[in-house]
Amino acid sequence: MRSYTPLLDLCGAPGALRALADTELGQVAAELRSATIEAVSRTGGHLGAGLGVVELTVALHAVFDTPRDQLIWDVGHQCYPHKILTGRRADMARLRQGGGISGFTKRSESRFDPFGAGHSSTSISAALGLKAALDADVIAVIGDGALSAGMAYEALNNAASLKQRLFVILNDNAMSIAPPTGAMADYLRGPCGPWFEALGFAYHGPIDGHDLHQLLPALRDLKANATGPVLLHVITEKGKGYPPAEAAPDKGHSFAPFDIASGVQHKPQARAPSYTSVFAKALIAEAKRDEKICAITAAMPDGTGLDKFAQHFPARSYDVGIAEQHAVTFAAGLAAGGMKPFCALYSTFLQRAYDQVVHDVALQGLPVRFAIDRAGLVGADGASHAGAFDIAYLANLPGFTVMAPADEGELMHMVATAAAHEAGPIAFRYPRGAGLGVDLPEQGVPLEIGRGRIIRQGADVAILSFGARLAEVLKAGDELAQHEIFPTIADARFAKPLDRALILSLAATHGALITIEEGALGGFGTHVAQLLAEEGVFDGGLKFRPMTLPDRFIPQASPYQMYDDAGLNAAQITGKVLSLLYAPTAKLT
Amino acid sequence: MRSYTPLLDLCGAPGALRALADTELGQVAAELRSATIEAVSRTGGHLGAGLGVVELTVALHAVFDTPRDQLIWDVGHQCYPHKILTGRRADMARLRQGGGISGFTKRSESRFDPFGAGHSSTSISAALGLKAALDADVIAVIGDGALSAGMAYEALNNAASLKQRLFVILNDNAMSIAPPTGAMADYLRGPCGPWFEALGFAYHGPIDGHDLHQLLPALRDLKANATGPVLLHVITEKGKGYPPAEAAPDKGHSFAPFDIASGVQHKPQARAPSYTSVFAKALIAEAKRDEKICAITAAMPDGTGLDKFAQHFPARSYDVGIAEQHAVTFAAGLAAGGMKPFCALYSTFLQRAYDQVVHDVALQGLPVRFAIDRAGLVGADGASHAGAFDIAYLANLPGFTVMAPADEGELMHMVATAAAHEAGPIAFRYPRGAGLGVDLPEQGVPLEIGRGRIIRQGADVAILSFGARLAEVLKAGDELAQHEIFPTIADARFAKPLDRALILSLAATHGALITIEEGALGGFGTHVAQLLAEEGVFDGGLKFRPMTLPDRFIPQASPYQMYDDAGLNAAQITGKVLSLLYAPTAKLT
Repeated sequence: MRSYTPLLDLCGAPGALRALADTELGQVAAELRSATIEAVSRTGGHLGAGLGVVELTVALHAVFDTPRDQLIWDVGHQCYPHKILTGRRADMARLRQGGGISGFTKRSESRFDPFGAGHSSTSISAALGLKAALDADVIAVIGDGALSAGMAYEALNNAASLKQRLFVILNDNAMSIAPPTGAMADYLRGPCGPWFEALGFAYHGPIDGHDLHQLLPALRDLKANATGPVLLHVITEKGKGYPPAEAAPDKGHSFAPFDIASGVQHKPQARAPSYTSVFAKALIAEAKRDEKICAITAAMPDGTGLDKFAQHFPARSYDVGIAEQHAVTFAAGLAAGGMKPFCALYSTFLQRAYDQVVHDVALQGLPVRFAIDRAGLVGADGASHAGAFDIAYLANLPGFTVMAPADEGELMHMVATAAAHEAGPIAFRYPRGAGLGVDLPEQGVPLEIGRGRIIRQGADVAILSFGARLAEVLKAGDELAQHEIFPTIADARFAKPLDRALILSLAATHGALITIEEGALGGFGTHVAQLLAEEGVFDGGLKFRPMTLPDRFIPQASPYQMYDDAGLNAAQITGKVLSLLYAPTAKLT
Repeated sequence: MRSYTPLLDLCGAPGALRALADTELGQVAAELRSATIEAVSRTGGHLGAGLGVVELTVALHAVFDTPRDQLIWDVGHQCYPHKILTGRRADMARLRQGGGISGFTKRSESRFDPFGAGHSSTSISAALGLKAALDADVIAVIGDGALSAGMAYEALNNAASLKQRLFVILNDNAMSIAPPTGAMADYLRGPCGPWFEALGFAYHGPIDGHDLHQLLPALRDLKANATGPVLLHVITEKGKGYPPAEAAPDKGHSFAPFDIASGVQHKPQARAPSYTSVFAKALIAEAKRDEKICAITAAMPDGTGLDKFAQHFPARSYDVGIAEQHAVTFAAGLAAGGMKPFCALYSTFLQRAYDQVVHDVALQGLPVRFAIDRAGLVGADGASHAGAFDIAYLANLPGFTVMAPADEGELMHMVATAAAHEAGPIAFRYPRGAGLGVDLPEQGVPLEIGRGRIIRQGADVAILSFGARLAEVLKAGDELAQHEIFPTIADARFAKPLDRALILSLAATHGALITIEEGALGGFGTHVAQLLAEEGVFDGGLKFRPMTLPDRFIPQASPYQMYDDAGLNAAQITGKVLSLLYAPTAKLT
């Protein structure tokens, strides 16, 4: 049943807020909080961040002339109240679901979203660009956790040079996903104005971000009087106003659908341990045997499983905050000093440290181990969080070893392989979510570098899988058997170095070869193609079909649906084989 | 003739410095300055930065126990005095030349280089990693210009969490390549201790970095007493002690070989205008016709030619300092606001902003124009500055258009193409140095998107070139003609979208197809291979050979020599064609 929200119902667009009295805005905020809780209780999603900015959202839209004025929410996961206020309340029913609205801001979704997000710390740079382009006010709302990322600092340092007014709202809730780390996190608890003033900002605050009687006058004053870059420091509480979120250790960062009265979440029963938890367990086991092993993450201790590692080895565990560039070069320094660093990041966030991977790790051949979580398509977080490019951007770096496990047991072996590999950088990438439920080995055993394995010997066609698509390939194999087609199925394990003997042998003994991977063009299939080309295998003809993520961004849905959209599920693999074997060979002219 | 440097001659290694009296260290510094000038006068190279740290170099080695203590020079181009002092004086004769020593620090070159560099702002992160790994003192020397990069801030913010002592020397010469920009650059001119103290550093200084009587006591005091992270602010002058460098606008940042007495540089006569200057001229012409065009660079106004643009359009020109991440998202903001931003960066530095390209530009389909200078192999700066990966890491991003001109006239057309292209992000990449001297058009004319061109119609074999290798391909064509082989030669112009009709037609009408590009695997040849595979062209057999940069880092030499090393010059193209046509077709078994 929908809450009784009479004033909110009247506010179809933010313009309506500007006709209300301040006391009425307080009621709008209360109703907006209820509506936010109610919406997320049905779909699940990022709850705590939005609840922390309910009053701020109302105040910003009441004071500024959105959408003419440009309001940018950093990261964007706190934008649910903003979405409800800007004409998307009904759409919240399909939040983060296939065909529904995004869990982040998105330009294509609304004029009220002038700059989309998903990754953190981009808002000030974007705001500066919009300000330089438009004759309107621009407001960036950025959390204290996001301030640890270098690009936020780069933008702060550059803001004054524009010589125009710009509003940065520091939404300080002393939390990102985990409590923030770093010196700034402590410094913000004190009189921190001088630090921002050094960067050319006028500092205002701190004020209570849940008190409209403080927010509205402060924003009106800034709007009336500001001439240059201004930072307004607003203290908020993540999860504010919903006790089950306030009480959660992560302040309700992410909730499954839940019962509003009790706060009990309806989490789907996991069918198997997650890749993340298997990684953490395997790394802890390795670290017990080898005191040189240490681990680095960037504000993702829970998401990467390194929270567990830190419980066992606090002195060998480093959470550097949202600071992927530093995380990677710090890991390179650890490796240069003789340690065995495991740098655990999500694929999509490792993109932030690409130059550091190239210049500080690969160029120096340092044995940094990259544990890349959330590889491939990730579901509800959508395209901004897809780990689509890492195979491509790592496997063409000289000296790099790149692995992907077909299941969580293989992941254990790859952790052991990485621990033992001292010859250069090595990466292993694995999906978000539950594994297959395979029997796990007692302990991981290092794999031979560059050696794949045949899973099923067949004929007709060879399917060479890299990573977790193997389960779908095996399903396709079963389907094909009903057509009396028996593919050879192999698990490459390594995108680099390739198992040349295996691949050339598959090509020589089958008329058709399909590669498949959970990544964009340029990765595993590309390296196979290059091998085949250089070895002259195409000269005599080979039906070769590399299956990769398609050349478009895949919108949010369940991971299974997203892979369906991408054409990488069993049915499409089966279809590819059938069309390949039954279509006439035709060289186009 | 070599300078008379009696004390320096005695100091074969830094240990010898520690036996000298402070007054003698002053003489060592004077001799070291002479030796640095003398060495660079013969080879050319980065002169000003090294001259600015002569006394600091002597003092650091005299006070700390290098190489046990770990000394890290940020960027590394100020390390020539360090190299001379650490056993590499004789090697300076082949500085930055093929087979010689690097112009940057390099782990493989010396135990005194614990962490290599080339790109800026990595030193503090690396120092933290080394400190966490080793029981020794670690000193990072970082310039004020490098402080504008986000990763330096990320490291500063994280340093205190290590709870160990760490030395950061801020080498403040108020210059990077160009004068630094941003609020910090001004702030450092005042009492700036509080800013660093907020980040958990003990601040000392500023002191005169050319006065050993200040440097030595300060360093000795820190070594004796420091317990946590310490920042020592040292004021230096770039080019110090050599009047022609001091007088240069860039303070002698980079010198060709020169006459010591007069400072006159022996610059080779350019045979043609540089790609950089043609880009600048073309962009200025476009901007005269379209007031929406603006330009962004990151501390490379001279190197990208945007200094010229800024002279014409100061209000539409943005130099954000060493801050590539911000540069790209700022450009994305400008594009979101309706401007037509050209973001001009070197290929190797665009790596710093990879996530911003993916997440802020490509995912939103914003029409940011990327002018990518120094693409491919760049010569004396070596592997750290090679622009090897940009084709691969851009061309697999959905919606991106990726071009490379075959010569400087084509570059003009591509600037016009980018100016006219509003459908999404677009990039064009071009080499360092002089063009071919072709006749330049009056003005650039937009190319049809995704359309290549046949340069020479032949038979036997088709060579499809992307970018500036076309000149070598044409030379190879001439060589092959002497063997009565007449290849068809085509210029792809676009790596994305591909000219499908052209490529499929070449494949259909030639028995062999070679692609060539100045980039690593994953780029142009990969996209061609994918097209050929998907269209079934390999099914019936095609001799396909993609020529790319090899899977190793190419050490410094002249660009021509580096391409020889990489196997991408005319002779190797000819060799590839001959072996392809005369070798028997053999499918390996």
